[in-house]
Amino acid sequence: MNEEELQHHISQQFNIELRELRNQVLGMGGLVEEQLTNALIALTTNDQQLAKRVYSNDYKINALEVAIDEESTRILARRQPTASDLRLVMAVVKAIPELERIGDQAERIAHMALQMSGEPQAKHFVAVNHLGEHVRQMLHDALDAFARIDVEMALQVMREDQKVDHESDSVYRQLITYMMEDARAIPMALNIMWSARALERVAAHSCNICEYLIYFVRGKDVRHISLEQVEQRARQAR
Amino acid sequence: MNEEELQHHISQQFNIELRELRNQVLGMGGLVEEQLTNALIALTTNDQQLAKRVYSNDYKINALEVAIDEESTRILARRQPTASDLRLVMAVVKAIPELERIGDQAERIAHMALQMSGEPQAKHFVAVNHLGEHVRQMLHDALDAFARIDVEMALQVMREDQKVDHESDSVYRQLITYMMEDARAIPMALNIMWSARALERVAAHSCNICEYLIYFVRGKDVRHISLEQVEQRARQAR
Repeated sequence: MNEEELQHHISQQFNIELRELRNQVLGMGGLVEEQLTNALIALTTNDQQLAKRVYSNDYKINALEVAIDEESTRILARRQPTASDLRLVMAVVKAIPELERIGDQAERIAHMALQMSGEPQAKHFVAVNHLGEHVRQMLHDALDAFARIDVEMALQVMREDQKVDHESDSVYRQLITYMMEDARAIPMALNIMWSARALERVAAHSCNICEYLIYFVRGKDVRHISLEQVEQRARQAR
Repeated sequence: MNEEELQHHISQQFNIELRELRNQVLGMGGLVEEQLTNALIALTTNDQQLAKRVYSNDYKINALEVAIDEESTRILARRQPTASDLRLVMAVVKAIPELERIGDQAERIAHMALQMSGEPQAKHFVAVNHLGEHVRQMLHDALDAFARIDVEMALQVMREDQKVDHESDSVYRQLITYMMEDARAIPMALNIMWSARALERVAAHSCNICEYLIYFVRGKDVRHISLEQVEQRARQAR
């Protein structure tokens, strides 16, 4: 093998490692999405078994976070990547804590489902159902954008976040009215409120993942600026 | 300058850059601590001006996050650090989003302070006051541990987290009783509840910073394991 072949071989191997790293993130993403879906089903159908399963599966997400993190650090140390390869590894390093926290929120929703064991189905589940479906779709699209490296799709997810904020505000208002009408409903209404809050957090984490994707693709940091500015920066060719 | 002198010069320069990076993190930490302190004062003394100041200062924290992040990536690309230097940069990369989110929680508490404009001082401020002071101290100690690279102090902060959870549970229980006794108090009690929740988050973020510090010093990941295991791993010499 001559020098050129060796270099080619090394960069081939490196590409495989980077692809593998991305696949691991997508695998973790799939698991997180499943956890959120199950937590929402457990909450709205009062399925205690499913809620417990979400609980007992959380360790898998945590283990993946640590493993992907170690692999990223190993790649940084051994391959010393630069430019877009470095940005990819940094995007992964930053995206995985977001995924892990979405897993935590799924666990939190499962906890609420367990707390409401035996409660009659509340009329306000409808509102939180709708919010849950919206947020689950956002997470799905954020992971899809990451899988396809699709900046347009990432921007679309970020546009949904404001709608989610309005939806959850409306859920809060309904619940407050409900609590003021019937004091006995307060503990259950609070559980729904905490679940809505957890969903809001999932939406925010999904947006953060999209921001890291845009950073990887465009090399531009799009945090802490308006959505209009994000769109402008994301559309500029690097 | 011979090769050895050049190498020494480069590593000297690199050390200065790493020290500078750590100082930037501590500067950001100081600002975040100030924001939390002011938000808590605004909440408990009904100081609207101060609450607004917390709001208008948040952009500074965001700007620091982006700047430190860029500097970290620049160091990774140019210096290609390994071993403990790499771990330091990775600890910084992971600690700054935690600081930024503590800043967000301070803003959230300031928002609650503004919402309660004109409300009479609630008796339950006392409980949230106490929780606030406890969490503020945890953040202070976490930053101190980071500044002194003090693993023992980091472990101490992590031990406080459980106490904070118990304290906030007790605040929630008091507030629920309060709400059930007087429906008109519900909106205000919810604001206090959200503030207590924000404080819980600050405590969790402070613990995460401590975990990253232990990772930097000991080269061991201490996430997602029991406190006893953390202490064991942190005490093992690397």
